Amino acid sequence: MAETRRLAEYVVHSRWDEIPADVRHEAARSLVNYLGCALGGSRDRAVDAAIRALGPYSGPATAAILGRAERLDPLHASLMNGISSHVEDFDDTTPQNYIHPSSPVASALFAYASGQPLAGRDFLHAFVLGFEAESRIGNAVYPAHYDAGWHITGTAGIFGAAAAIGRLRGLSVQQMVWALGLAATQAAGLREMFGSMGKAFHPGRAAQHGYESALLAEAGFTAGERGIEGARGFAAVQASRFDLSKVTADLGRDFNLRRNTYKPYPCGIVNHPTIEACIRLHHDHRLERDAIRAVRLRVAPLVLDLCNQQNITKGLQGKFSVYHGAAVGLVRGKAGLQEYTDEAVNDPAIRRVRECATAAGDAALSEDQAHVDVELADGRVVSQAIDQSLGNIHRPLSDAQLDEKFRAQAVLALPPAQVDTALALCWRIAQLDDVRELVSASVPAAAAVTSGVA
Amino acid sequence: MAETRRLAEYVVHSRWDEIPADVRHEAARSLVNYLGCALGGSRDRAVDAAIRALGPYSGPATAAILGRAERLDPLHASLMNGISSHVEDFDDTTPQNYIHPSSPVASALFAYASGQPLAGRDFLHAFVLGFEAESRIGNAVYPAHYDAGWHITGTAGIFGAAAAIGRLRGLSVQQMVWALGLAATQAAGLREMFGSMGKAFHPGRAAQHGYESALLAEAGFTAGERGIEGARGFAAVQASRFDLSKVTADLGRDFNLRRNTYKPYPCGIVNHPTIEACIRLHHDHRLERDAIRAVRLRVAPLVLDLCNQQNITKGLQGKFSVYHGAAVGLVRGKAGLQEYTDEAVNDPAIRRVRECATAAGDAALSEDQAHVDVELADGRVVSQAIDQSLGNIHRPLSDAQLDEKFRAQAVLALPPAQVDTALALCWRIAQLDDVRELVSASVPAAAAVTSGVA
Repeated sequence: MAETRRLAEYVVHSRWDEIPADVRHEAARSLVNYLGCALGGSRDRAVDAAIRALGPYSGPATAAILGRAERLDPLHASLMNGISSHVEDFDDTTPQNYIHPSSPVASALFAYASGQPLAGRDFLHAFVLGFEAESRIGNAVYPAHYDAGWHITGTAGIFGAAAAIGRLRGLSVQQMVWALGLAATQAAGLREMFGSMGKAFHPGRAAQHGYESALLAEAGFTAGERGIEGARGFAAVQASRFDLSKVTADLGRDFNLRRNTYKPYPCGIVNHPTIEACIRLHHDHRLERDAIRAVRLRVAPLVLDLCNQQNITKGLQGKFSVYHGAAVGLVRGKAGLQEYTDEAVNDPAIRRVRECATAAGDAALSEDQAHVDVELADGRVVSQAIDQSLGNIHRPLSDAQLDEKFRAQAVLALPPAQVDTALALCWRIAQLDDVRELVSASVPAAAAVTSGVA
Repeated sequence: MAETRRLAEYVVHSRWDEIPADVRHEAARSLVNYLGCALGGSRDRAVDAAIRALGPYSGPATAAILGRAERLDPLHASLMNGISSHVEDFDDTTPQNYIHPSSPVASALFAYASGQPLAGRDFLHAFVLGFEAESRIGNAVYPAHYDAGWHITGTAGIFGAAAAIGRLRGLSVQQMVWALGLAATQAAGLREMFGSMGKAFHPGRAAQHGYESALLAEAGFTAGERGIEGARGFAAVQASRFDLSKVTADLGRDFNLRRNTYKPYPCGIVNHPTIEACIRLHHDHRLERDAIRAVRLRVAPLVLDLCNQQNITKGLQGKFSVYHGAAVGLVRGKAGLQEYTDEAVNDPAIRRVRECATAAGDAALSEDQAHVDVELADGRVVSQAIDQSLGNIHRPLSDAQLDEKFRAQAVLALPPAQVDTALALCWRIAQLDDVRELVSASVPAAAAVTSGVA
């Protein structure tokens, strides 16, 4: 049914006035969440290593890297933005297909927009279109594709970046078909990389390669024209079962963006209800850390499959330990980036509580639910149940909660005075005459964008 | 069984004196064949388009592109070399896994060597190691991987480029494990692209991304450590059946290079016996083109699956038409690059003979065999059978035939005076103090490498 061409036609011909107001607002929420994550992750060792390795091969340094003083060409900047925005496992999720959708698309768009004039409305429109392309292609192959071992954020993400950049470059339908084909033939990323820097590399490459696919197609570099639906195309090769009708179903009327979700805590999402319960207990009962004698968790069985690590020493391991999540909630009353450092994991008070926690799987609980009992030194037992986890699709983070999440990350990369400026500009991105105003506020002052060329 | 680590250990620790003399000679033959193909394809529109699209994003232009005057950074030069060396479908093949093995490895190596001093012996050693890594990983997943729709030259090729460049950069075993992991998670390329420029893009990306994987690993960018054999690693995700023992079987004793083959004609390999029969008929019977009344082909059934196009107008289609192959053999007595241009396909004499040809599948014939009857105006029927196709593993091209193939392609890119110089230098690559001598001879004179930096 020529899904590749129909999607290309939509992306090329979509008009801004066809994007509903609620979708525009959700797009801004996604970008606030994205930009905070990119800033919060921008000092990670993975970003340092990637810049050290590939920076010497950068072309003219016309593009900013969010949160960093270095500048690179926009293709390399796309890669770095993608790594930083995903490396803390704090970015957004569409639960229907487990894609972390903003990173591949917005990482390319911010790199693109940092080097030339671009109206915020055009940026936001391209973001919406890239998001739809990516999420719909993901819907078509999920879950077989993900279950097989593909990191769908990388594989589907490249289509989103290609569509978004292709839209801004003004590709024809024929060129957009080629861009999507070149995206299909570069779609990659294995779940075997989870636990290493390779995981965050995936949305970075998706951003960079989607961008390059658009440039190549624009220059007349041809591709197979049935990249998505062909007999040896993306869906057939990378998924044992797929439903191509999901690529185009209600295209232009239904928007996947409406179902985007934002994590309150930078760790495996199945730990979130436990963490929330523990944070509530901390505050409601003014828990003293030394008074905690035992912690008993009841969780969905999947939690124990994914996050059953107790004897840990690294921040990255903490992200996949439900015991660590419980401990930071109970001891510190919060679970931000500072609770997932190597230091936090080795903090004696946190370690002691982590080690006195036990967990039992309970098939009656969903992955949005948890039950926590804490036994105290005086013999009391305090309890908290969570029925719908904060940040899930039924209890989304409010705009104010997104502000708070943004600020807590942005301060790691930006002078305090810039944090609120960047946040305010990001919320009103649709009104900006030139997105470089936002980019300038999103890099350390010395690196601020002035002329658009370094 | 930690195949990734065992392969990494071999590539890191291999010594030149462990490479047998016949393998060294076959490596030189592979490079002569590769370099000719890279020169012959260097003026293709696909290369023009890729340079137009991505050249503006190149880093410092320290590297040569074989056959071209432009210089780019070595990563982009790797990409361009990979496209040019595969775009004519004239490069080498290991029949056991259908990989076109030299393009991904040598494309990265020539880009690397064009910008810095490198002894020919080290170049050739890295080539042998990259070839082994690539071909062995291909053996492990073939045929299920290829049958599923993966273009194995791209997917396996990236491992070869990573191993070869990683070896030259002096990676530790740990770094080589990461490099192979980063290769695994970028392995890509769909057969859906066949018939478009996307096909030749695959070995180009494999070369570039393998090179980048080595650079990233060297800088401490980590990857999953079981990229090949892990539960969600390359083999399990990209092949429904695989045999990992083939990655390490007789490693260091058996060399896949010994089983490399070189095409005499730039087209689908299953057409080769038909073409050879027709060339023989042309010469043995001094056929007059106008005297040909009918051409009857008997071929392996697979030929009709893959190459059954008769009504064609493009050179690229001619590569996959057994009728066109028969016609150029009968009319021109040869089948070189000039017989696969748009002009040749539309040549009235060739078209007439193509259109009077018929083909029948015969399950008694192997893909190395063909039978041709030609009915002449005077009523005579002349016949030729081929039992082992020229260029197959049992009838390899001689060194002299490789010379001839090289020259016919190199003249398309180089001044005539350079052609024999480049050829002679390539044969004695193992003796060169600095491979830049060969690179200089392999670019148009104005672009010759002098200082190694543009």
